[in-house]
Amino acid sequence: MNNFYINTKKVPHRYYLTEEQIPTQFYNMRADMKNKPEPHLNPATMKPVTREDLLPVFPEGLVDQELDDETPYFDIPDEVREVYKMYRPSPLIRAYHLEQVLDTPAKIYFKFEGNNTSGSHKLNSAIVQAYYAKKQGLAGLTTETGAGQWGTALAEACSYFGLPLTVYMVKISYEQKPFRKSVIKTFGAGIVPSPSDTTAIGRLILEKNPGTTGSLGCAISEAVEKAVSTKDYRYSLGSCLNYVLLHQSIIGIESKIAMEEMDEYPDIVIGCAGGGSNLGGLISVFFKDKINGIANPRLIAVEPASCPSFTRGRFAYDFCDTGRITPLAKMYTLGSQFIPSPDHAGGLRYHGMSPILSQLYHDGLLEAVAVNQIDVFSAAQLFAKTETILPAPESAHAIRTAIDEALICKETGEKKTILFGLSGTGYFDMKAYDAYLQNKMVNTNPSDEELQKSFADLPSILA
Amino acid sequence: MNNFYINTKKVPHRYYLTEEQIPTQFYNMRADMKNKPEPHLNPATMKPVTREDLLPVFPEGLVDQELDDETPYFDIPDEVREVYKMYRPSPLIRAYHLEQVLDTPAKIYFKFEGNNTSGSHKLNSAIVQAYYAKKQGLAGLTTETGAGQWGTALAEACSYFGLPLTVYMVKISYEQKPFRKSVIKTFGAGIVPSPSDTTAIGRLILEKNPGTTGSLGCAISEAVEKAVSTKDYRYSLGSCLNYVLLHQSIIGIESKIAMEEMDEYPDIVIGCAGGGSNLGGLISVFFKDKINGIANPRLIAVEPASCPSFTRGRFAYDFCDTGRITPLAKMYTLGSQFIPSPDHAGGLRYHGMSPILSQLYHDGLLEAVAVNQIDVFSAAQLFAKTETILPAPESAHAIRTAIDEALICKETGEKKTILFGLSGTGYFDMKAYDAYLQNKMVNTNPSDEELQKSFADLPSILA
Repeated sequence: MNNFYINTKKVPHRYYLTEEQIPTQFYNMRADMKNKPEPHLNPATMKPVTREDLLPVFPEGLVDQELDDETPYFDIPDEVREVYKMYRPSPLIRAYHLEQVLDTPAKIYFKFEGNNTSGSHKLNSAIVQAYYAKKQGLAGLTTETGAGQWGTALAEACSYFGLPLTVYMVKISYEQKPFRKSVIKTFGAGIVPSPSDTTAIGRLILEKNPGTTGSLGCAISEAVEKAVSTKDYRYSLGSCLNYVLLHQSIIGIESKIAMEEMDEYPDIVIGCAGGGSNLGGLISVFFKDKINGIANPRLIAVEPASCPSFTRGRFAYDFCDTGRITPLAKMYTLGSQFIPSPDHAGGLRYHGMSPILSQLYHDGLLEAVAVNQIDVFSAAQLFAKTETILPAPESAHAIRTAIDEALICKETGEKKTILFGLSGTGYFDMKAYDAYLQNKMVNTNPSDEELQKSFADLPSILA
Repeated sequence: MNNFYINTKKVPHRYYLTEEQIPTQFYNMRADMKNKPEPHLNPATMKPVTREDLLPVFPEGLVDQELDDETPYFDIPDEVREVYKMYRPSPLIRAYHLEQVLDTPAKIYFKFEGNNTSGSHKLNSAIVQAYYAKKQGLAGLTTETGAGQWGTALAEACSYFGLPLTVYMVKISYEQKPFRKSVIKTFGAGIVPSPSDTTAIGRLILEKNPGTTGSLGCAISEAVEKAVSTKDYRYSLGSCLNYVLLHQSIIGIESKIAMEEMDEYPDIVIGCAGGGSNLGGLISVFFKDKINGIANPRLIAVEPASCPSFTRGRFAYDFCDTGRITPLAKMYTLGSQFIPSPDHAGGLRYHGMSPILSQLYHDGLLEAVAVNQIDVFSAAQLFAKTETILPAPESAHAIRTAIDEALICKETGEKKTILFGLSGTGYFDMKAYDAYLQNKMVNTNPSDEELQKSFADLPSILA
């Protein structure tokens, strides 16, 4: 490492758009998709879900966004833009020092979404969801959270709009991240480790599997049950759904504008993918360019090898939750009963994947790679040391692949422009960092047998 | 609370300077002070310390800055500015929503210094200190840390420049903030809870007071001893010293430029004060305007009522450390043997205060208020809920007073412009937030008897 590093290239390290450049509309990828994502199915009828099916579950404004495959742009409500102005536009940063340490001819940019209290991009959608709930005059929301980023973001948004919230937090995260729940409580939300005895489905899961450490799928079941069984409550989901990707398109829109201001365009766009909200948001307008023949960036999803929905999953209709009470979605899935090893610390623990991204992957418009968690934390530490930001383990998946692509450029001499999404910070993940630093971390990837067993539980509509 | 809040005032929520507007020079308040701070005294001779006295303790470049009362501006080395560009300019933010919730005619701005991995303003000086140490070819640094912000910042800076570092962390913080040390380790530094048996002074303190939870004063003694007894090591301090305030002047310089760009000037400038680096940096150029008759802003130091150096301390020569091995400084002090109650969670635990700020306070150019920790956490939670940033307890002292001043404006109808320093984020302070949320927090302020006893230990040069 050159210890006295000076940028002689006269390009800014960070680019901030002005407040006026915060987008006024979200972009709906579905409008430009030739093959639209398949509709969700009502589990009772196995027919496509209707507006009426969804209204008891989600706030009305979100139901309309969820079902709309045609409208390319949705206005961002003024009230939402006002809250965005507290932390947006988010910076686009050139990782000069990382480039230097890697000795790569590639240019590495990242869009940093961790510069708000929630610590991640999740706040972008949380604000919209809390807004529509409030606008509808609802009494409150329920939700689930895995690593805690979504629960924090929605707690913050609900606090802002004065809406009660109950968060079901995956038990393993609840235990591994003692202070995450404190943040959520600081914002005034209730928090329940899942599975719990507060719902019928939670009690059933606990009975079948008393020692379970939980999963996003379980927590979703509980949150949905609680919402539909509580007067004037609705359920809120932080990823995977079409409307969540719609809201997160602000990441990609801002990224593209900022890169254009710097006379740049990415050859490769990289994002981590659990349910797909961060990745779907980041690639949104780059996908649009790609499908319209304006540019041809590679779009890469990075997932944990321990929860490899894209790279080892099936493209099939499956339940979004473990308790099988939600609609079915056509998506890449490991089976709704799949639960990643509790040794997996890197987040992105969801069995399925956004139907939009699943369709893009199926159609060859999106690539996917799976990375091992030890390699992920090694990338995380290198990034922290070189770029002064401690990344969330989730985001570090994208860092890993950005580094790998930059190292390929070093081999080939290509001066590619890489853009990755730094979706959040890792302040609440120090237990996992500790395990890595003490060489106690292991790679815990599912065996083929385990996946086959999980696939056997896929709903019969598959056959 | 108006839940649908729209900024109709057409003023940006945040102001970012451009990279080119990052200052190229630090401002040295001493050059404009009519009454200069008194010189440090060598404890062996009780004469003013010389360059030669300090060279075995601090890196050479810093010694020169420490002793210079005359030069108004010091160039910021290009290598330091390059690192600054990773996280600077830091944003100036208008707290619109907080204003709305308070229903105040006052305008509240804050300069946010938590947008880097160290989570606080401390990185501003850490980079300079690591740079000068590296430039001198030193083998490593030692330092102390209280709440952990300084240790994190210096670990990050040393990691960046490839310098070994040992951090003595105040034992109570080491225990209360389990993940702070993980961050410091992630950056590759060694960390020792203080008092420890790794130094003679640590062993002595432990023998005299076996159950002690430590203090910054103890940790300083240990870090200095370790530095001067290790070949080619020097000691690094994160606050209080003249050169630290010099580096932190970047906060005030950027704040003033950003406010000017928005056609604003503060009527009141508020910062929290432990050793004084954040406050000293924030007020720097506003002090210059004040002393030169260009403007007359009120400058307010906010300290914890449990460690009230300004408001209940003595203006006297005292040791900077508990072990009495450092030079003596003329400052407001509670006595070097004073240790705040372990129930005090809000940081700012130092017995003394920057000699520069002490002189300003003594001369009536700086005001000071002491606030109770429960009131501080109440302000912290309100700020988090309204402004999407979870503040460090230290910074929340400034928030408390900013709110109090805004509420006075509500009474009087005055449209004052308030600027406060949000020196850092509270991600590692959730244990303290927990105590507050569970109503387990108490105000633990020293009794008069306790202070009298502590003052009795002041060095006899007083008399």
